[in-house]
Amino acid sequence: MRAEILAVGSELLAPTRHETNGAYITGRLQEAGVEVGARVTVADDHELLASAFRGALARADLVIATGGLGPTADDLTREAAAHALDRPIVRDAAILESLKARFARYNRVMAAVNAKQADVIEGARVLPNRNGTAPGQALEVGGRMLFLLPGPPWEMEAMFEADVFPRIAERAGGAVLRTRVLRIASMAESDVEQLVAPVYSTFQNPRTTILGGAGDVELHLTASGSSPAAAEGAIEELAGLIRARLPGRIYSEDGRRLPAVVGALLRERSLTLALAESCTGGLLAARLTEVSGASAFLDRALVTYSNAAKVDLLGVEASLIERHGAVSEEVARAMAEGARSSAAASIGIGITGIAGPEGGSAEKPVGLVYVALSGAAGTRVRRALFPGDRDRIRQQATQAAMEMVRRGLLGLATEA
Amino acid sequence: MRAEILAVGSELLAPTRHETNGAYITGRLQEAGVEVGARVTVADDHELLASAFRGALARADLVIATGGLGPTADDLTREAAAHALDRPIVRDAAILESLKARFARYNRVMAAVNAKQADVIEGARVLPNRNGTAPGQALEVGGRMLFLLPGPPWEMEAMFEADVFPRIAERAGGAVLRTRVLRIASMAESDVEQLVAPVYSTFQNPRTTILGGAGDVELHLTASGSSPAAAEGAIEELAGLIRARLPGRIYSEDGRRLPAVVGALLRERSLTLALAESCTGGLLAARLTEVSGASAFLDRALVTYSNAAKVDLLGVEASLIERHGAVSEEVARAMAEGARSSAAASIGIGITGIAGPEGGSAEKPVGLVYVALSGAAGTRVRRALFPGDRDRIRQQATQAAMEMVRRGLLGLATEA
Repeated sequence: MRAEILAVGSELLAPTRHETNGAYITGRLQEAGVEVGARVTVADDHELLASAFRGALARADLVIATGGLGPTADDLTREAAAHALDRPIVRDAAILESLKARFARYNRVMAAVNAKQADVIEGARVLPNRNGTAPGQALEVGGRMLFLLPGPPWEMEAMFEADVFPRIAERAGGAVLRTRVLRIASMAESDVEQLVAPVYSTFQNPRTTILGGAGDVELHLTASGSSPAAAEGAIEELAGLIRARLPGRIYSEDGRRLPAVVGALLRERSLTLALAESCTGGLLAARLTEVSGASAFLDRALVTYSNAAKVDLLGVEASLIERHGAVSEEVARAMAEGARSSAAASIGIGITGIAGPEGGSAEKPVGLVYVALSGAAGTRVRRALFPGDRDRIRQQATQAAMEMVRRGLLGLATEA
Repeated sequence: MRAEILAVGSELLAPTRHETNGAYITGRLQEAGVEVGARVTVADDHELLASAFRGALARADLVIATGGLGPTADDLTREAAAHALDRPIVRDAAILESLKARFARYNRVMAAVNAKQADVIEGARVLPNRNGTAPGQALEVGGRMLFLLPGPPWEMEAMFEADVFPRIAERAGGAVLRTRVLRIASMAESDVEQLVAPVYSTFQNPRTTILGGAGDVELHLTASGSSPAAAEGAIEELAGLIRARLPGRIYSEDGRRLPAVVGALLRERSLTLALAESCTGGLLAARLTEVSGASAFLDRALVTYSNAAKVDLLGVEASLIERHGAVSEEVARAMAEGARSSAAASIGIGITGIAGPEGGSAEKPVGLVYVALSGAAGTRVRRALFPGDRDRIRQQATQAAMEMVRRGLLGLATEA
């Protein structure tokens, strides 16, 4: 069973705009074992739209269109689909009444233009819209399924879950897809690939894709099976082999990102954290506090951008900065120790580096970052040279710091 | 002149993936006055692809496909386009030689599979690939233009700029599109819309779209004209009317976001900033330091998550917190003043609030945030109740704080 998704609306073709309904529907269809063959975003133009519907209905067993069901002149989805199907449109009296009643509830008289939302393609089943005015439509055309859904995500998703997904899942006959994401911090994508490709490339099911972010690599394992348990079993078989290739390196298999994982480890152990950030400028603190409940472990973070702030707030000696420079192993160490003692925290983190694009030199290039971790057992400093632009360098520095905390708490060997 | 863009590759249909080539090409075509009628993302499947090419060539004057030009079995763009056009494919001897030479330069023997990259649709002009192996192809088909470009963005963009865009611009006949983005902070999208819709809706050219983010609204004004100056002139006419409707509210018309604008204002005036953040957890500092050069104005930021940190680092009196609670006008004020005096900075900012999802009460609900600004003229506190989830509340709080700084520096009235 193969699907095609049409997103209708000229505004969706703006270069700055991401169309999100298609991603949502694709994800849900995958879970039902339905493959998406194409996604089409099309402008509000009758001829274009009718042509897109004809193409989709020729190629796919299931066509889902979103958008263009509103009351205005550029809402053309109903008319274009009817044209492509060569079927007439009829005005549905029951919908018309319910539209009028809806307006009456808000003490408003319905403008005539809204009546268009009661237009239904002959033979279509009407799908109620719990979160808006425009109803959806469902058709069967020569064994193919066609759904017209509203564009606003909260309207579309509610209708999709209530009236569309159950019918598709039933038709798809029970084959399911499941995806698990294994996450690895502070390793290069190519290093991960080299270690695990010999394993995953021997599997047809699950399929594996690697996505590399800044200091974060994701392995997406997607398996199909006759049941959720069968698909999960296929994933677990491969995941076990991958784990053996990356001992201690996979920080999450349950969707959580590194801040949530590190935060949970700290909370479980009733440990507290104090941060001293220079080049990351508060980004590590901001990421650790993305998750509610960070107050249980994060006492304070000191963004010490100036040297005076390092001296005042962290007790870093001015002579140390003079001797080694603000970006140095020695200053990172003093920052971590200063943050820890300032807060009487279990763990102190110090980060200093050159995020660029300005400020680099031959000796201390852009991307050079020192991350120090200070705990009861002493202080360790990691020196790294991160590639990429300012944003990627800062992201990688925060990933490295959190991975150091994670490895320390789990008693894993320190990284290379 | 109307364009359609095809992105080829099953991996692009993954729910987590954003296809970026289409946005790039759409933006450039707009600048050349070419409207994009549809964007299609299609799986690596010969029949699907050929059908997508047929549809696009029926609907558009210009078709640009990206991806599927590599050497492997699932690279099918050449064959599918040839099939749709009903033209044969010929192997180009010159390309084959240059492929072999490229491999020889790296002391490698070319695997046979790579020869496929020398396949050219009959009648196509070959487009050299400066950044990779797969060449592109350009065809004229009954007055329509068809381009096949490689998928990796750095290969695609170099080829597009060198060999595709100039021909399209020439064919488009000199009409150009220009877009200007007006940005407004700390206003609801609906409030902006209500003020400016009566103005922009009377204009056919420019077209205006409104995009709302967290504490940030963008007005995109897109005009076509016979020259860049004519398009800019049309934009300026409308922008002037919008400015009059939003006096002092537009913080940027040149692409810069609020952190860059506020940072530049501080640098120009040689003023320094010290931050005390609670619920935003370092996000304001992280955003202000996204731009290189923040060390000129940002002395320090104190993320005082615990009450002890507020007392220790900012000199907030413990009794004040006890009396009014950590989330209160009084504590926000003391945080701003404490940050300012700790750093001897020109301006101090204090932010305290409830970002949720936990921690709210009837009296102090999730979304309640106090932002205080302390300067030579005294301290002001703004109380806000922000809608949305934790992330949106934190973003809005940082926008509110930066907008307070901006308005203060420019001597604009404080906001309602």
